[in-house]
Amino acid sequence: MPKIAILGAGSWGTALSIILSRSPRQHEIALWARNADLADIIARDRENKSYLPGCTLAPRIRVTPHLKEALTDAATVVCAIPSAHVRDVFTAAAKNVPAKATIVSATKGLEPATNLRMSEVLTQVLTPASLLFAELPLVLSGPSFAVEAARGEPTAVVVAAQTKESQITYDATDHAGRLRKHQAESAIGFMLANIQEQFAAPGFRLYTNFDVVGVELAGAMKNVMAIAAGACEGLGLGHNAIAALVTRGLAEMTRLAVALGAKPETLAGLAGLGDLVLTCTGKQSRNRQVGVQLGAGKSLNEILAATYMVAEGVGTTAPLLALAAQHNVELPITQQVDAILHHGRAPKEAIREIMDRPQKQESA
Amino acid sequence: MPKIAILGAGSWGTALSIILSRSPRQHEIALWARNADLADIIARDRENKSYLPGCTLAPRIRVTPHLKEALTDAATVVCAIPSAHVRDVFTAAAKNVPAKATIVSATKGLEPATNLRMSEVLTQVLTPASLLFAELPLVLSGPSFAVEAARGEPTAVVVAAQTKESQITYDATDHAGRLRKHQAESAIGFMLANIQEQFAAPGFRLYTNFDVVGVELAGAMKNVMAIAAGACEGLGLGHNAIAALVTRGLAEMTRLAVALGAKPETLAGLAGLGDLVLTCTGKQSRNRQVGVQLGAGKSLNEILAATYMVAEGVGTTAPLLALAAQHNVELPITQQVDAILHHGRAPKEAIREIMDRPQKQESA
Repeated sequence: MPKIAILGAGSWGTALSIILSRSPRQHEIALWARNADLADIIARDRENKSYLPGCTLAPRIRVTPHLKEALTDAATVVCAIPSAHVRDVFTAAAKNVPAKATIVSATKGLEPATNLRMSEVLTQVLTPASLLFAELPLVLSGPSFAVEAARGEPTAVVVAAQTKESQITYDATDHAGRLRKHQAESAIGFMLANIQEQFAAPGFRLYTNFDVVGVELAGAMKNVMAIAAGACEGLGLGHNAIAALVTRGLAEMTRLAVALGAKPETLAGLAGLGDLVLTCTGKQSRNRQVGVQLGAGKSLNEILAATYMVAEGVGTTAPLLALAAQHNVELPITQQVDAILHHGRAPKEAIREIMDRPQKQESA
Repeated sequence: MPKIAILGAGSWGTALSIILSRSPRQHEIALWARNADLADIIARDRENKSYLPGCTLAPRIRVTPHLKEALTDAATVVCAIPSAHVRDVFTAAAKNVPAKATIVSATKGLEPATNLRMSEVLTQVLTPASLLFAELPLVLSGPSFAVEAARGEPTAVVVAAQTKESQITYDATDHAGRLRKHQAESAIGFMLANIQEQFAAPGFRLYTNFDVVGVELAGAMKNVMAIAAGACEGLGLGHNAIAALVTRGLAEMTRLAVALGAKPETLAGLAGLGDLVLTCTGKQSRNRQVGVQLGAGKSLNEILAATYMVAEGVGTTAPLLALAAQHNVELPITQQVDAILHHGRAPKEAIREIMDRPQKQESA
């Protein structure tokens, strides 16, 4: 029974522990909570009432606040920590991460201080010896409200890998180059197929993908779009307006991601379009809820003070705008959301500016 | 004051008459209803209580059951008739359509008997003399619940044109070819810009597009996807499942449309992604409602007997499958929706087959 360690006992980390406990593979599962009291309460109640009420943890899930206990002998380590804390936690965890463990990032967002994607942060923090291939970890993303996935309702996500090797290009006549690329991709493909099989559970399906840049940027940007969609609703606008916003939102996400090296088809897939639709239209989205309340006139401080949940989009606008400036890409929606969140701009003005943006010809 | 005639007094035709009555251009507007009693009642109540309750018709909107009265001196003729009746109505109307009128199709769907798009049907029925350019009419489409647009809530749609001339290709050194293409596109561009300006109204924005094939196929296919999304909900599946379905739905729509000559970016735009998101997630969608009831166990006959509204998706699956067969494209979702609607397949089995379809690698 290979062991899977999940770091982070928020909604998604807890849901993943429950999903994985249903795998026919009968994994040994450790769920690490930073807060020792929370770990004790979850272990006692067999339920995470704070972050995932109503979902029972199977006996095979061991809940612990001790990194060493969680990580020892783990074949797979899943990162499900808010993006702002990934560096700290994995710096502390690094010495306990087994040398051959597969690392899977399930965190969506960018590191505020550095603008880095989560897989980049993990690669910096974990010594090369703890990573099986250069430029891994793998990334898990897609349209997945935690409570639905934990209940076993049908959920489809992607698991992505990217290596320098997979970007090898070769001439049509260069058979050695072709073989080299094929071998590198086969090794990564094998690793992905392994996680795909390990993580599959009733109702939970994984599709492999070779574009970590696209998957991670999509996962970060869709939260910002969800804040904008929520603001539309909070302002009393209808479904037509939100559908138009989602359309422009995906175009904006695709522009930046492609400028940073992503494949456009990743943005059109589960981690892009799928997660965007879910987050912009589903009532359970925390980012959307922040937008709804902003649109209804509350201040960000009021909203954040009333919840202990993390809305990743709040901290993501600044890193996205920094990346966009470096690559000379315009992000009109992200710009306005940033202005609402951090510069006191009135949501009504900001949304009007997004909606009334002159754009005479589509996809011009 | 140029006159605009709208044929069809359903939800969307009525909404368009109300939107256009708010244009600063102060159009003369005629709204034609096939049913003389309905025309009388709308004219008396200044409201279409059957199809668009709660929205007042301005005095400038003349409601009539007489084609000649509606069409005489019209500079623009809008088709807002259910797809199954467009040929009949326009065959009867043809002799009254002014020779230089601009024709705008606002109908989404395919003609069941012929698999033709609405602009193709209109081109067959209207004599060349009544069309200013070959292969027009224009097409209006996008995410637009009628009641929201009629209330003046922000709504963005596309208006599209396509001519043989716009498909002229030329060599980089062929200056005459380049000029010919430029002139043709300029003429069409002028026509589109004219409609864009004529139809713009507070809250209602139009974007120009040069891909009628893509716009019309998207408008037809999204209704089928909405039936599938509704069936998921009727079966009790969650938002994660619907988000995954929307993602695969857009891929399926794009596959067929591109095989028929559309541009992929049209499918990623307002008429594609935008309208798909609206129709699959918004409670007001009639097609989605049909799906919800099918998923909950009702028969198609029961559902159709209980409404006088048209759910375009019901009649669209067969033409789509015929087109797909001609072009050797697979439409797994459309296939299953067709089986539910017309071949007695249990929704639960059909949706399971869609969700469980083996697809190990994304966008493979």
